[in-house]
Formats: sequence, C-alpha cells, structure tokens
Amino acid sequence: MTRRTAILTDSSSNDFIENLEWKAREDLRLAGSEGWSISKRRMRGGVSDGVDVVTLNNGALAVDALPTRGMGLWRGTYRGRNLGWKSPVKRPVHPSLVDQNDRNGLGWLSGFNEWLCRCGLSAFGPPGVDRVKDANGKVVAEWPLTLHGKIANRPAHKVTIEVDSAGAGMLRVIGEVDETTMFGPCLRLKSTVETEAGSNWLRITDEVSNLAGTPGEMMLLYHINVGGPFLEGGSKLVHPVRMLAPRDDHAARDLATWDTYLPPTVGYREQCYFIEPAANDDGWSLALLKNANGNLGMTVRYDTRTLPWFTVWKNTIGERDGYCTGIEPGTGFPNLRTYEREQGRVVVLSPGQTRTMRLELGVHDSAEAVAAVETEIDALQSKTPRAVLESPNPRWTAP
Amino acid sequence: MTRRTAILTDSSSNDFIENLEWKAREDLRLAGSEGWSISKRRMRGGVSDGVDVVTLNNGALAVDALPTRGMGLWRGTYRGRNLGWKSPVKRPVHPSLVDQNDRNGLGWLSGFNEWLCRCGLSAFGPPGVDRVKDANGKVVAEWPLTLHGKIANRPAHKVTIEVDSAGAGMLRVIGEVDETTMFGPCLRLKSTVETEAGSNWLRITDEVSNLAGTPGEMMLLYHINVGGPFLEGGSKLVHPVRMLAPRDDHAARDLATWDTYLPPTVGYREQCYFIEPAANDDGWSLALLKNANGNLGMTVRYDTRTLPWFTVWKNTIGERDGYCTGIEPGTGFPNLRTYEREQGRVVVLSPGQTRTMRLELGVHDSAEAVAAVETEIDALQSKTPRAVLESPNPRWTAP
Amino acid sequence: MTRRTAILTDSSSNDFIENLEWKAREDLRLAGSEGWSISKRRMRGGVSDGVDVVTLNNGALAVDALPTRGMGLWRGTYRGRNLGWKSPVKRPVHPSLVDQNDRNGLGWLSGFNEWLCRCGLSAFGPPGVDRVKDANGKVVAEWPLTLHGKIANRPAHKVTIEVDSAGAGMLRVIGEVDETTMFGPCLRLKSTVETEAGSNWLRITDEVSNLAGTPGEMMLLYHINVGGPFLEGGSKLVHPVRMLAPRDDHAARDLATWDTYLPPTVGYREQCYFIEPAANDDGWSLALLKNANGNLGMTVRYDTRTLPWFTVWKNTIGERDGYCTGIEPGTGFPNLRTYEREQGRVVVLSPGQTRTMRLELGVHDSAEAVAAVETEIDALQSKTPRAVLESPNPRWTAP
Repeated sequence: MTRRTAILTDSSSNDFIENLEWKAREDLRLAGSEGWSISKRRMRGGVSDGVDVVTLNNGALAVDALPTRGMGLWRGTYRGRNLGWKSPVKRPVHPSLVDQNDRNGLGWLSGFNEWLCRCGLSAFGPPGVDRVKDANGKVVAEWPLTLHGKIANRPAHKVTIEVDSAGAGMLRVIGEVDETTMFGPCLRLKSTVETEAGSNWLRITDEVSNLAGTPGEMMLLYHINVGGPFLEGGSKLVHPVRMLAPRDDHAARDLATWDTYLPPTVGYREQCYFIEPAANDDGWSLALLKNANGNLGMTVRYDTRTLPWFTVWKNTIGERDGYCTGIEPGTGFPNLRTYEREQGRVVVLSPGQTRTMRLELGVHDSAEAVAAVETEIDALQSKTPRAVLESPNPRWTAP
Repeated sequence: MTRRTAILTDSSSNDFIENLEWKAREDLRLAGSEGWSISKRRMRGGVSDGVDVVTLNNGALAVDALPTRGMGLWRGTYRGRNLGWKSPVKRPVHPSLVDQNDRNGLGWLSGFNEWLCRCGLSAFGPPGVDRVKDANGKVVAEWPLTLHGKIANRPAHKVTIEVDSAGAGMLRVIGEVDETTMFGPCLRLKSTVETEAGSNWLRITDEVSNLAGTPGEMMLLYHINVGGPFLEGGSKLVHPVRMLAPRDDHAARDLATWDTYLPPTVGYREQCYFIEPAANDDGWSLALLKNANGNLGMTVRYDTRTLPWFTVWKNTIGERDGYCTGIEPGTGFPNLRTYEREQGRVVVLSPGQTRTMRLELGVHDSAEAVAAVETEIDALQSKTPRAVLESPNPRWTAP
Repeated sequence: MTRRTAILTDSSSNDFIENLEWKAREDLRLAGSEGWSISKRRMRGGVSDGVDVVTLNNGALAVDALPTRGMGLWRGTYRGRNLGWKSPVKRPVHPSLVDQNDRNGLGWLSGFNEWLCRCGLSAFGPPGVDRVKDANGKVVAEWPLTLHGKIANRPAHKVTIEVDSAGAGMLRVIGEVDETTMFGPCLRLKSTVETEAGSNWLRITDEVSNLAGTPGEMMLLYHINVGGPFLEGGSKLVHPVRMLAPRDDHAARDLATWDTYLPPTVGYREQCYFIEPAANDDGWSLALLKNANGNLGMTVRYDTRTLPWFTVWKNTIGERDGYCTGIEPGTGFPNLRTYEREQGRVVVLSPGQTRTMRLELGVHDSAEAVAAVETEIDALQSKTPRAVLESPNPRWTAP
C-alpha cells in the first residue's frame, strides 16, 4: 500500500502550497481508476481573489472543495454532469467580502453558491436576536444572529491532502476551520472529504470540537443544493419518513405535492418541509432526488445519530434566480436558536468534547441504479410507521 | 489596423496577469502619440494590498482605473496637472477593509478618494431604511441601505485591455463587476473606459444589466470629484439649466452663489444643488468647472437619455479635510431610494435588460479652449428656458 | 557606526518586500549580541492569509510585530520563555475577516490574541452609542462605537526596519497606520518598536497625529496581555499608586486581593481596577507582574505625561478560555467615550498636532532582578500618599 500526503496550508508552521497537481504515475497507481487527480489552485482577481480550491477527481466523480469557505463543496461533476446548481452568485466569494450583517442579517446570501454549504457551527437559521435565558426563564444575554452562522465564511487554517492506494484507492482532503472568539463560541471543524477512485460517491466526516473550557452550543446543517439535470419539472424527492410536517401554512397548502417539483417558475415562493427520518439499524437514513424520468438521481446518506433531522427546501424559482432544491440533514431545523434550544435541538458540547457527523453523496445515472435506491428506501419505510402532519408541528415550528 | 488585447483577470478561466506594461513599439504605433502606455500592477501592503491598478496613458492624459474598486477612476493627470482631489483617505482601500455598515451606514466614506466613484447599482444616496410598498401603499419590505450603495466596493471579475491603432489610436480597459446576491439585486456593470492617443479626454460607456429573472431596480450616480488646480476660490461651474433648485434650506440661503466656489474654508458645511439639464438634439449635456482665471477647465459631457439629472456637491472645506466639488450626472438625485422611487427616478430593468450610460471627461488648459466650451454651453442655454427655484423642489427633495 | 535600513512596505512608492532576513555578518555586527536577527514574512492561508510579521530578535528577547494589525505585538520570547498568552483565537486574524460590528459590537474579540494590542485611536472602551453634545448639552451627533476602536484592525501603509550599531546596537521597526475617513476622524499612528541587542527590554514610541484641518479626539490604551509563566496562582501585580479604585461593585468585593491572582479558574468573571499612578520626577511610572516565587517578572514602564491612567484587567479564567491579565496604561479608562469626554480624559489634538506616547516592556528572570524592580516601585510609593477607594470612583466609573 502506498500513501502520499501533502500539507497545503498550515498557519502554525507557515506551510503553504499555492499550486499543486497529482496524477497517476508509476509509483502511485489506484486500482479504481487511472484517470484520478488531485489539484489545488488559488483563485485570483475579482471576488474570488485568494480563494483556494482543492479538486478531488476520482476518474468519474470530481468535486471542488473550498478550504477558504469553511470546506464547502463548491461544485462537482459525475461523468460530465454538473452536480450543483446555478446561483445568481456566479463564483466563490472570499469571506472578507461577505458582510453577514448586511441586509438585515442576510449578507450570507451574497456568498451562497455551493453545492454543499455548511450552516453553523454555533448557530444556523434565520437572522434574529437569540435571547438566552437562565433556569428561571430570565433573559441573560441577547445575541443578534445572522443567517446560517459563520462557518461557511471562515478559512481553514490547516489543509492536507492524501492519496491512499489501499483497495480501489482513496482521495482525501482534510481541513480544519476554527470558529472562535474570546468570550464566545470556540468551536473547531475538522472535515474529511474523501472519494474512492472510480466510484460514484464521496463521503464527509465532520468532527466538531469544543475548544473552550466551558460547555458550548453547536448547530450544524448541511445545505446541499441541487439544480438541473437532477432537478426539473417532475423530479421527486424520496425519503423514508417517521414524521413529516410543513414548515408553515404556505408549505401546508401544497402538502400533497411536498415531494415533487415544478419546473423553473419565476416568482415561486420557497416552501420547506421538515422530516424526522426513518433509519436503518445502524442509524443511517437517506434521501433520493430523482429526475422526472427516474434515470438520474442523487442520494444523500446520513448518520441520524448525530444528524437526526432533515429539511427539504423547495426553491423552484426561475433559472436566472437560482432554481434549486436543498436536501439538508442537520442537528436541528433552521429556526432561530432560541426556539431550537427550547426544543432541545441544540447540541451542547462539554469542554474538549467532539461530535462526529457523517454523510455520503452519491450519483446514479441509470434507471436501474435509481430504482435500487428507491427499493432500499421503501424497505426502510416499510419498517417504520409514517406520519404526515397537515399543519406545522408546534415542536418544529414556533407557533 | 492593429488591435492588441489582453485578459488581465477572468475568474471563470482563472486568467490573471499581475503586472504588465505595454508601450509603443515597431509593430504597435498609434498616430496620436508616441508616448502612450498601458500598465497594470497590483498594490501591496497596507489598506491597498490586493488592489489592482490599470493605467491608461495616452501620452497627454493618464488615468488610473481600479478594477478592484468597481472600476472607479482613482486619479488622473493631464500634461502634469492632477485631475482628482486630495481626500483624507490617502490611498485606495481594498473593499474587504471597508465596512459599509459602520458609523451609522457611512462606512463607505472610509474608502472614498477617487476622482470618479460610482454610486449604485441598486441604490445610492444617504443611509436609511428603504420601505418598499406594494400597490396599496403597504410596506412589504424594509431594507437598511448604506451610503451610496455597493458598486464602488465590488471587485471586477473580468478585466480586459485593448489598444486599437485605428485613427489616432485608442486605449481601453473593460471591466465587469457583479452586484449580485441570492434573493436580492442581481446587476452587472460592464464598464469601458477609453481614451484617444494624445487627446484631452476619456470616455466611459457603462452597460448595466439585470441578470435576474424578475424586474430589478437600478440607480447610478457618477461622483466625479475635483480639487485644485481646477477648484480654487473663484472657480465657477457652468451648466446649461432647464431647472435648478437648492437641495435644502442651507443651500437655498446661498443660491445666489450656487455656481461659484470659495477657497478652502475650514468648517464649511456642504451645499448641494440639483439640476435638470438642458441638452443638445442628441440628448447630451455638459458641465464645465473652470478656475478663477478661466484658463483651466474640466468638462463632464453626459448622455441625458440615461443620465437625466445632475447634482452639484460643493464641499469647499479645508485642504486637509478634502477640499473638492462633486459634479455628478445620475439616474436620479442622491435621496433615499424610497423617495426616489416615489418620484419615478428609480430605473426598473426587466429580466436580461441592459441600460447604457455614457459620459466623457475632458481637460482644457487654455483660456481659448475654456471659452469655446462656455460658448457651447451658452448656445445650449439660449435654446432652453432656464428656471431657478429659490427653495427646494418638492419633487427633488423630500418635504 | 553603521546603520542599515530597509523599506518593507510603502504604498505610495509601491515598495514591498515579502520576505527578508538579516543577521550578523562581517560588515554589520552589534556589540550587544551576535545572535540578533530581523526577519519579515507574510503569512499564508487561513485567517492569517496576508498578515505580515516582522520579528525583531535581539539575541535574548524576540518579538513578532504585526504591521497588518496596527503594529500590534503578537508575541514574544525571552530566553525561551513566552511573553504573551494563549487566546482562544489561535492565530493572527487578518483585519478583513474581523467584523467589528458583529455580536453587539464585540467583533473585535474574534481577532484578539496579541501580547500588546492597541485600543484606539479615536475611541476605546465598550461598544455603545457615543452621544456628542454641544456646549448647551444638546446631543448633536450619535456614533455607534464598537469595542476598543479600529486601530488594531488597520494595516500599516508604511513599514521600515533599521539596524543601528551605535552602542550595544539597536533593532527597530517603524510602522505608519492611518485611521482616516472622509467627514470623520483622521488620525495617524507612527509607531517605533525598538530593542537593544542582548537586552531584556523593548521600547515603544507612538506618535499620534491629527491629519485633519479641524480638532480631533484621540484615545489610546495599551492592552498588554500576559499569561503563564508570569501569571499563575499567587502572581502579584506591583504598582506605585496615587489612587486606586475598583471599576464596579463586582471588583469592589475583591478589593483586598486586587493585586494577587488566582490560578486558572473556569467561570471566573473578569475584574478591573483603575489606577492613578505615582511617577518619578520625569513622569515615568511602572507596573511589575511577578510570579508566585518572585523569580520571574514582566515590567511595563510608561510615561504618565501622555499615559496618565492605568487599568488592571484580571481575567483568570480557564486555560482554554484565555487565562491572562491585562496591564494597561492609557490616555483614559476603558469607558464609553461619552463619559470619558465628560471627565476630561479624551485628548483633543489640534490640526496637525502630534502627541507622543512612550512605554517599555522588560523581562526579569531572577529573584534579584525582580526584587530590584520592587525596590524601585517601593521608593516611588514612599514619596506618594496612596489612596485606595473601597468603591468605584464616580469620576472613573459612570455612576
């Protein structure tokens, strides 16, 4: 077995590699594919100036990870098909140009264009004032929160890549991102993104640690955004459900079609559905987004032991405005932290404690492969009673 | 005819040229001047770190364009004379260091030092909350706006230079700057700045497009700022006027001297005058700022079909504090967007629509040349009745 | 005598040196030490990307200065001992990533990790709205201030290093940092940090000038932060006192132990004590922080003619949370500017005026050396009556 490693960034040792490209060669071959590569570049000019991009290409599936944007996954391709979406934000935006407090706390949206974008680590959800209460219900602190938290706009201070020839061969990028402040949250994300040579999947293992000497709150949502060709009029989301509810009355009105999608519809107003997933014996669940013909699908498999909730964000607006859907496992639902805390969906990490989130993204480009995933989901569902609420669940949506 | 082109920045293709210098040579001569050049450099260190500067030098007139600051024109010279002003902000500030929400929404002023600085694209004017109303007058959205909008603090994602030997020869820089966000304004500025070899002028052609799938509001003001030697005690602004009004009571009090300037006056409080310009048959109007002797002048010619309004900003404060005047064609007046919308001065671009703004800056360094411009202005004025209001126009200034 | 100089950064001339290292050699020897060096590097990657570090190493004492962060002193060592502290903010943060308006105006804390961090120049103290009043007490302006002002997050536009062989030999870094805006404060800091070859001290000479044409307010506090091994359970602060008072009731409760320190104590709530120092005939005073055994100490000597007040910040929280103490000479106390102005502790600089602040940091690593400093402090105290107030001084703390 051969294992090759490189440190791309390490602030502590001042290691930094601006450009790099690795490919198959005599002494480093992977059984799964001859066409693999790992490359790294720094973008120059415009709003992307200074954004580092690490590309893992397993020979079939390729993904651009952005250490500079909290290890988000900008975009991917599988056998020539785009895996992300087309945001009106055309290119990666350096965090220094995103003022999250702008526009009533919605500034995050001016940098939002990733296929997979993390929301967290100490909060996600809409902008608003989080009123922290003591045991007697007295407000002891008020924190104005901006949309979806800080982690997507924090650069990784340490980035490593690896190629491992064991089995089919594995490509890996590992990034560490701190969200820390004096007298405030001190959380670290260590994210490993890896993909097997020649495969149709990638795996994310995110370890979030509390670096502080006192307990720390943690929230994390994976905003996984998909447009065409996976999303189109007639696309369908398949998910094994223990309980499902519309987020609000607007979503409740279209509950009957919660799992199907419109074509691009200028003026469409976003709808969200909240899911408590059914899972297998190991605690894993999965979502499938399949196209109208059912011959193309993307799956998100996730470990419900640390990601127990799932949000479907339907955003079938016009093409130019960002036609997409979000399929989003999380530690909670995208509500203001105050409410999520009251509902027990905010994770509290003790000093030094680490919590590990796991998920896998897969692509299926034949009717057979898509059907196989559906069969798997059906099997999970068949073991679990399915409750669909017709109106918002008062424990999931603030009344 | 020879035409030479270079891409300095293209985020999409990852093209980037950090330093460049073009000059006359065997195979690239311009009839208008032998002393022309185009150069590009990236500033390093301090608040300017990462700011790209493109210099067009036509042999007589030179201008420094700042792609990193929304294609603003930092400064210029004409036969050794400085064309800009001396701001207390001593050098170009990288947008990442300008917090526009700082100081009650006045943060823009900490980066303000250009000769020509664009205000816009989705708003300009003072900071304040824009209350957007529906057809029934009900407020449906509230957007906190910062002074003069975002475009001056957005870096161009694409920058090209050109030399064209046709005629006297032309030097050009073309920049594209996006002001886009998910669920918000999606506007693109494509700005062409060009100057003829050996000439005393430069031309700006700005195409603003709505990239969104829904109609989008657009506002654009050219904050053209001039200090000495053009501005001095006794300098005069000459402009063909259809209607003129003071912005407020403070300006109304000095209406009689609206078109003349004081020397640097510590403690002077800014005064503004609003103008509906008279124009020629092609729709062009022009402003002339001339020095006390009348042997030095700067002109701003502009196309009133897309820039129908003009603001005079008199700011004859102390030298150290930023003695200057702003001569400012715009799509409207620098009021809060709510009011400008009510008055019909906010442009609405349909999806994909482009609007083109055109203006020319010229320098005149002899009494004859200055007199010739005045004659031209007089001729325009003679064809147009001139109304001067003694108090603010309630359709130009919110009562 | 030999003197060697290099310009590391000069925005005006576009000089910039990214990496540099100077050491002793044939033609440049210093009598005080053979092991001296000056080096400069630019950090790459993560939140530190683009942060310049200048290291002065006099052979015994070394210090990392950060031109990019307002000439703050990140960290130091003396004969292998660390002179700073361990902030939860693990590494220097580029100012473009510090949103000072975030978290109720506490965003400054997300970049706070220096040994010596300046608070100022136009304000320091807690976040809040500064209500500026005219002579009649009428509020004429309201400025929202963020914690501790802007200077720590402004990059130096000019940076020079010097080696001077006179005497024992001197190493120097000189940085100029502007805190300027149109229609607002226009202050310049010129900071000289120097250390004698082989010595146990460094000297800071800070000249702050008002670049404006009108009078300008100035406030400056040196947030000098020290952790282990100088700070530990049983460490003591020794300071000659004219008057001392607790900042608030919380501090008043522990007045008896104001000058001694706890070991790291999770959940400790910070306490501050305010001091009017006793000084020698030249106006200099000094603070000594010594360890429990009294064989290790750090001194801060400062010129009370321009730094007349001193704040002790006790912050003996858990190690992971930033165990440290701040020993802080200043132009005033860390209160909201409104109150400091009322109490006459805001400096007003006339146009062009410069005020010079002077201080020295020293390290003492033997019981004898520490005792000698204590004797010096005792001698100063013996000449000055010492008043210790049991409750906050209403002229130092807003009632």
